[in-house]
Amino acid sequence: MKLLRYGFAGQEKPGMLDSEGNIRDLSGVFEDISGAVLGDDRLEALRALDPDKLPLVSGNSRIGPCVGHVGKFVCIGLNYADHAAESGMKLPEEPIVFFKATSAICGPNDAVEIPRTSVKTDWEVELGVVIGKTAKYVSEEDALNHVAGYCVVNDLSERDFQMHRSGQWVKGKSADTFGPIGPWLVTRDEVPDPQNLAMWLEVNGHRYQDGSTRTMHFSVATVISHLSQFMSLHPGDIIATGTPPGVGMGQSPATYLKPGDVMELGVEGLGRQRLVTVAG
Amino acid sequence: MKLLRYGFAGQEKPGMLDSEGNIRDLSGVFEDISGAVLGDDRLEALRALDPDKLPLVSGNSRIGPCVGHVGKFVCIGLNYADHAAESGMKLPEEPIVFFKATSAICGPNDAVEIPRTSVKTDWEVELGVVIGKTAKYVSEEDALNHVAGYCVVNDLSERDFQMHRSGQWVKGKSADTFGPIGPWLVTRDEVPDPQNLAMWLEVNGHRYQDGSTRTMHFSVATVISHLSQFMSLHPGDIIATGTPPGVGMGQSPATYLKPGDVMELGVEGLGRQRLVTVAG
Repeated sequence: MKLLRYGFAGQEKPGMLDSEGNIRDLSGVFEDISGAVLGDDRLEALRALDPDKLPLVSGNSRIGPCVGHVGKFVCIGLNYADHAAESGMKLPEEPIVFFKATSAICGPNDAVEIPRTSVKTDWEVELGVVIGKTAKYVSEEDALNHVAGYCVVNDLSERDFQMHRSGQWVKGKSADTFGPIGPWLVTRDEVPDPQNLAMWLEVNGHRYQDGSTRTMHFSVATVISHLSQFMSLHPGDIIATGTPPGVGMGQSPATYLKPGDVMELGVEGLGRQRLVTVAG
Repeated sequence: MKLLRYGFAGQEKPGMLDSEGNIRDLSGVFEDISGAVLGDDRLEALRALDPDKLPLVSGNSRIGPCVGHVGKFVCIGLNYADHAAESGMKLPEEPIVFFKATSAICGPNDAVEIPRTSVKTDWEVELGVVIGKTAKYVSEEDALNHVAGYCVVNDLSERDFQMHRSGQWVKGKSADTFGPIGPWLVTRDEVPDPQNLAMWLEVNGHRYQDGSTRTMHFSVATVISHLSQFMSLHPGDIIATGTPPGVGMGQSPATYLKPGDVMELGVEGLGRQRLVTVAG
C-alpha cells in the first residue's frame, strides 16, 4: 500500500493511492497516518479494503508529509561506502547517529526555505524507514519486523551551521522545511529488499546524486538494531539512513542551493519529490 | 502557577498545585498540559480560576512529566563557566546544541533505567525552559516573551555512549527515562529572574552539584534567540540549558550510577525530583 496525507499544511487528511495512482480518502477509516495506526494489525485491516471503493480526492490536492506526529527523526551519517570514498573519509566503526528536529518536516513538493544567514544549504536524498512497532534491544534478525514501511527523505543540511557553529550537527539539520518526507509511505510488503533500491537527485535538471542502497554501509536492519540499544524506537519514528555520493559540498567547486532552485529526487518504488527553494 | 500532570504513565491528567501544595484536577478545564494550552491567553484564562475550588486529587498519585506531547527536547552543552573551568575546557563561542530523544522523557520520581551495556551513566541537574509561543528569528530582547515557564530537568547521560560510540552526543542522551522533567511547570510570572536560581543534586545523600544559574554562560534569552536562528521553537518544546559543576564524570575518581542509587535534585522555586535507578 501507498499511504499518504493530503490537504493544507497542519490539516492533512489520511489517504492512499488506488490502482490507477489516484488519491483515495481514508479519513472515514482512521484519523491520520501516524504511529497509532502503523502496527501490523491496523495495516492488515487496511489491506482488506478495496481502495477503488473509497472516496476519490481531487487530483490537485497538496500532498503533505506522509507521516504525522513523528516522535523522532533519527539520521545516520556517512553511511555509504562510495560517499565516504569520495569524501576521503573513513567509514565509521558504528553508525553515526544524529537527530533532525521534527519541526523540519514538510511535504514532498513544498517550498524549501533557505535560512536567512545560510550560505551553504545542501541536499541529501535518502531512504527513510518508518517504524511500525516499538523496538528496544532488538536483534538484527528481528529488526525489519519493526518497520511499517519506507519513504523518500531529503535530509537538507546547512553545511556551515552543521560544521562550524560550535559542535553537534543538529544546528545545520533542523531548519523549518529541511525535512521533506514522502510523497508516500510504502508498506514494507511492497519493498522486498530495501538494500537494492536506486536513488537519485537533480537540481535544475542536473543529476548530482545517482546511487543505490546497495552501497549502504550499515544496513537498515543493522541500523534499527543498533539504535534500539541506545533508545526505544516508537511507531511513527523515522530513520533517514544516509546519502550516497553527489551532495553539493562534494562538488568541485562546492555548489549550494539558492532561492528559485528546483530539486527533484526519488527512491525506486517510493515516488518522487519536487521542491523549489525560497528565501527564508 | 504550578502546572503538572498526574496519573499512570501515558495516561496523565492535567493538574495544578493549590495554595496548600495539593494537586487539583484540571481535566475539566483542558485536556492536557501541552503546547496547545501554553500560550499567554490560555494561561491567563487559567490564572482566573480559583485552584482551591477545583477537584482535589488524592495525595499519592504518581506525578508524570510536567509537559505532554513535547515536540523537541533541545539541550545546551558546556554552558556554565565554573563547569568549563572545572573540566579544563574553553567556553564555546556559541551555544553547543544537541537533542535528547523526546521518548527519554519521564516523570520526576520515576525509576531511571541504566541501559544494558552502560558503564558510565551520569547525572546533570538543569534549568528547563518550556516554550509557550512559536519563536523564529527572535531577538534576545523579545526572547523571554516566548517562554511559558520553567521546570527542573535531569539530563541523564551515558558518557561512553556520548563520547566514544562514533560521534554525535545523541547516543548517550536518549535512553528511555534519561529525561525526567518536573515535578511542575512554573509559569514565567513566578520566575522573575531565571538567571539567579540555586540548583543542586545529590546521589545517595551526597551533594555533588551545588550551583546557580548565575554562572550560566549563555543566558536563557540568548539561547532562545540563538536557537531560533536555526530552527523554529514551538509551544511545548523544552530547552535544557546546561549543567553546573559536579557531574559524575568530573569526580576524582569518576563516579557513575549503579542500580539502586537515589538521585535527589532541584532548582530554586521549581520543586525537586527523587529518582531511583534500576537495571535496564
